[in-house]
Amino acid sequence: MSKKFNVSNPSGFPEFTLSEEQVRREWVAIIEDIFQRHGFTFMSTPLVEREENLLGKGGEAKEMYVLKRLLDHDDDNTHSGNALRFDHTVPLGLYVARHFNELNFPFRRAVIGPNFRGERAQKGRYRQFDQCDIDIVGNESLSVASDAQIVAVMVEVFSALEIGDFVMRMNHRKVLLGYFEKIGVDMEKLPVALKIVDDLEKLSREKIVENFGEEGISSDRAEKILDFVNFTGDTQKVLEFLISEKTDSDSVFNEGVDDLETLVKVLQAMNVNEDCYKLDLKIARGLDYYTGMVFEGQIVDHPKFGSVCGGGRYEDLAQMFTGKFLPAVGVAIGFTRLLRQCLDAGIVKVGKASPTEILVVAADDVSFAPALFVGQQLREMGLYVENFVEKKKLAKKFAYADKQQISYVIVVGENESREDKVMVKNLVEGSQELVDVESLGSYFLGE
Amino acid sequence: MSKKFNVSNPSGFPEFTLSEEQVRREWVAIIEDIFQRHGFTFMSTPLVEREENLLGKGGEAKEMYVLKRLLDHDDDNTHSGNALRFDHTVPLGLYVARHFNELNFPFRRAVIGPNFRGERAQKGRYRQFDQCDIDIVGNESLSVASDAQIVAVMVEVFSALEIGDFVMRMNHRKVLLGYFEKIGVDMEKLPVALKIVDDLEKLSREKIVENFGEEGISSDRAEKILDFVNFTGDTQKVLEFLISEKTDSDSVFNEGVDDLETLVKVLQAMNVNEDCYKLDLKIARGLDYYTGMVFEGQIVDHPKFGSVCGGGRYEDLAQMFTGKFLPAVGVAIGFTRLLRQCLDAGIVKVGKASPTEILVVAADDVSFAPALFVGQQLREMGLYVENFVEKKKLAKKFAYADKQQISYVIVVGENESREDKVMVKNLVEGSQELVDVESLGSYFLGE
Repeated sequence: MSKKFNVSNPSGFPEFTLSEEQVRREWVAIIEDIFQRHGFTFMSTPLVEREENLLGKGGEAKEMYVLKRLLDHDDDNTHSGNALRFDHTVPLGLYVARHFNELNFPFRRAVIGPNFRGERAQKGRYRQFDQCDIDIVGNESLSVASDAQIVAVMVEVFSALEIGDFVMRMNHRKVLLGYFEKIGVDMEKLPVALKIVDDLEKLSREKIVENFGEEGISSDRAEKILDFVNFTGDTQKVLEFLISEKTDSDSVFNEGVDDLETLVKVLQAMNVNEDCYKLDLKIARGLDYYTGMVFEGQIVDHPKFGSVCGGGRYEDLAQMFTGKFLPAVGVAIGFTRLLRQCLDAGIVKVGKASPTEILVVAADDVSFAPALFVGQQLREMGLYVENFVEKKKLAKKFAYADKQQISYVIVVGENESREDKVMVKNLVEGSQELVDVESLGSYFLGE
Repeated sequence: MSKKFNVSNPSGFPEFTLSEEQVRREWVAIIEDIFQRHGFTFMSTPLVEREENLLGKGGEAKEMYVLKRLLDHDDDNTHSGNALRFDHTVPLGLYVARHFNELNFPFRRAVIGPNFRGERAQKGRYRQFDQCDIDIVGNESLSVASDAQIVAVMVEVFSALEIGDFVMRMNHRKVLLGYFEKIGVDMEKLPVALKIVDDLEKLSREKIVENFGEEGISSDRAEKILDFVNFTGDTQKVLEFLISEKTDSDSVFNEGVDDLETLVKVLQAMNVNEDCYKLDLKIARGLDYYTGMVFEGQIVDHPKFGSVCGGGRYEDLAQMFTGKFLPAVGVAIGFTRLLRQCLDAGIVKVGKASPTEILVVAADDVSFAPALFVGQQLREMGLYVENFVEKKKLAKKFAYADKQQISYVIVVGENESREDKVMVKNLVEGSQELVDVESLGSYFLGE
């Protein structure tokens, strides 16, 4: 080697092993199927958008990667002005703005693909990670039943992944903000109060009261908020509690409670397993853009995984780009992180490194061409077949099949070929059988 | 809007419409299936690698995008040192280096995913584009039969895509370089002579002779090269011509000819349609890293599409990172460009914008919950079903189904529900039928 390379993955950009990758592909197939069975349409927007659009209205700094052409290295003026997307939601807003007239509303979008965040790397935080999103975008209005559909799809997805009991914790921003208003928290303190609630589960009660205090919210009010958000019980009990808190003057609070009531009714109508969702008044979701329902999914036996999916109602993303009122609701699964966590925790077991079912080998030089032909015929029947074509001893070919966990080896040999037969070895059972070439298809496909 | 956004796609980063996207997904499914049936294993490496590794040994400037954290904008010292991959081949070399001890050789890798080039945007050139690659990496040796397997897979893929007759044009670097040597071209002129042959089809004969002349290759030799590479005929005829040119002293040339002979024999043994491949001595492939076989695919009726896939044998990529001799052969399909070309040329027709088969609507408020339940039941049977849940008039709901080209609308109404029936409307045939809720499954699945 003329030069020494550091070939390790750049920090924050890991990859799966081949057998892990097979699980990844199975998961993607499961999620794609469920998304599509619920009427969501996949689309793939570019990974790169204009920096100013990704930054949005606020223009605040985000942990984002901007692109520079290597050849412009020393010339900052040619800065491309483009950046890698950091989520699927802003690109959705841009897509809707670009294609508004072609789209049919409510627009149901699905996407599975990578996003990028230029964070300092740390365990469990990736700089490139796949997210699986579904969103429903309405034109001028969008019923609460859409929010329920999103929750129902998540319950179905996590049940299909078989990684343990899943629960979607659901709340409403208007319930929280309305309650803060009710007890007299200043209007301008509402966002910061929401943020404190969002961090609730990480801190002690004392610390939270202190945090409220630092923001000028009295300990009396802080205690009230804590009692309110910590109210627990089954769905019906929480709903009854919320209804009991309604008064004629609390229009924001009441709207939130009414939405949650409708949400639960729709989930019941869809026959969604009641163990898989609950009202949880502590859920606030950090992101600014949520305006109504918010939800966070959790694997019950693995609270340390954190929220495995999260989402809610937002009304400003497409509006920012279109000037139109396009209320939307969506959710994102943190796919890469979740899969890594499930693999590391042993909840998901890896199997073979490839889908190959049969290895075809030639026992002698004369059988090289016939072996190729046999392999090709089986492939045409839809089987997953590899021809081992390297000049190696038969034992080496079997060793390869063994390592690859390929169940069957077909040995094509001169003597057997004369009678139009091949030897089929079952490596799992350690058995072998002479099979007519003509009946290989029915042998493997059982037809 | 407080601010005006330019929402158009950044130049060179286009996207497909929803119905085009459905075709894209079909193509991906077809290609994935064929790759896997031939024993190739999918893996997904990160989109980002160390800049120095992507640049490789030479360290020459490439049209590459390097990443910068937005928050480090004004501080060039924190340059991340990472860049977006520009092909799937260098990352394969890195992957093999990282995972050498886990891998089973020959290692058969498949990948479908985006690559990035920081080129000035022009029509048909993308800055982000999907490529579909397969590669076979040997440990110390790799038989020519592997090269043939790559060709056979491409023939199968392009036949399955149904975009017209496909032909793989095949040649061998050693045949070209060996021939140049034979006729006395200086050793140090060999790479530049190869480059001139690579541009042959774009230029006039006079211009080519002139180009050779500028590089110090005599017009006599230039004419010989031109006659040689322009030799045409069916596979057998070209092989015979090449064999007739062999002499005992031309070891490089002879190796190339022997490889091509073996290649053709294996293709014949695999029963690959002879119309779908040919020996074409003009094929050189621009890229430096090819060392043996080279091939380029073409859609016969659309030469303007250019090469729709290209590849060959290379021996230095993994070696560079591992210090081991790991000969490899691979091919890449220029997926995004090809699909765009086929769509624009009308070779591929788009259909529906989503896979939804059935829209379920409620005719009245009482039927809202039953409609949700019916939809969910059909989904559980594997059907693609959307519930329209917005409060709109029935006509609006039908207009939505119509625009989305959904074939069936199930109307759940109070009267019909009393008899456990729903109205099924077939929008394609303009017919309707009352169906028992219980037998909806067999109605749609024909069981």
